[in-house]
Amino acid sequence: MTQGTQDIDDLIALMAKLPGLGPRSARRAVLHLIKKRGRLLTPLAESMQKVGATARECLNCGNIGTGDICDICTSEKRATGQICVVEDVADLWAMERASVFKGRYHVLGGTLSALDDIGPEELRIPKLRDRIASEGITEVILALGATIDGQTTAHYIADNLPGVTVTSLAQGVPVGGELDYLDDGTITAALNARKAL
Amino acid sequence: MTQGTQDIDDLIALMAKLPGLGPRSARRAVLHLIKKRGRLLTPLAESMQKVGATARECLNCGNIGTGDICDICTSEKRATGQICVVEDVADLWAMERASVFKGRYHVLGGTLSALDDIGPEELRIPKLRDRIASEGITEVILALGATIDGQTTAHYIADNLPGVTVTSLAQGVPVGGELDYLDDGTITAALNARKAL
Repeated sequence: MTQGTQDIDDLIALMAKLPGLGPRSARRAVLHLIKKRGRLLTPLAESMQKVGATARECLNCGNIGTGDICDICTSEKRATGQICVVEDVADLWAMERASVFKGRYHVLGGTLSALDDIGPEELRIPKLRDRIASEGITEVILALGATIDGQTTAHYIADNLPGVTVTSLAQGVPVGGELDYLDDGTITAALNARKAL
Repeated sequence: MTQGTQDIDDLIALMAKLPGLGPRSARRAVLHLIKKRGRLLTPLAESMQKVGATARECLNCGNIGTGDICDICTSEKRATGQICVVEDVADLWAMERASVFKGRYHVLGGTLSALDDIGPEELRIPKLRDRIASEGITEVILALGATIDGQTTAHYIADNLPGVTVTSLAQGVPVGGELDYLDDGTITAALNARKAL
């Protein structure tokens, strides 16, 4: 069904492919864009074109940047001998927002999954092994999701990286979290990892 | 805080201005776009540029089209003597999806609102009055929201269009609606407007 013009229909169909937007919210977003075409639609189109032309995956770690090797991998300051392994670029961004980790990253691009037929070769794990030798890594910090697939992947990596310390993010009560709202698994993990004050 | 590059940050900031997207979902959408830059990001940028260059408001009815006068206003088939008055282009699209109304539209661009200082002049109401004379309109169908502002606007229009039949969409139980989930107002309206079977 046509909403105004074919061009607008096409734009709505493309917007509806974004995560978090369905057909209805895509229509709403497109109408908003058309109403603010000077201040929002044109800048957004230009920004997308710029990002589309320059953004690419770092050949070393899988992060998104503008060159073959990303800013973090080229920075000598970040050569601390530590690599933080994450599932996705979104997780890398989350770690960077906390600005507490000073080393480099390795983006797996997913987790091992027997169901989806994803093995170590699909996940940049061979590349991780290469980097441990070539970048003189002493510690691999696993920052993977606390899901079954995430933990399977963590164990696989820990078992397959000899000669390097493999650690994992602590599990426990989140800052600001109330016990009443936590699941049993988190409470069990937090109790088992309790610390002396 | 920088996510990859300044260009990506800018894109996230622009995406976060869309209705229904916040900073977090904008980040997720941008990552998705970058991952699918060939199939989604570039087509989306081009589609936005095309719509930005061509889309404009119809000078007659306020609908969005590609010329000074929209397709509905130029179509002789739609000159049925009926005008359907809606608040927004989204409402016009919703009416068109139902494909039951064969006349023309008039998009107010909002509702009268004393709080927001929106009077008849801001709402294309004078233009509606002109069209009734120039297009030989016999019936004005009000398809405004069942909100206080929508109903105030409906009453204002009904009181200020002499010499033309003014009707309004029926209120009642929505198709597929269960009584248990309906509010009191809807049930009252449906009971008062009950029909003999």
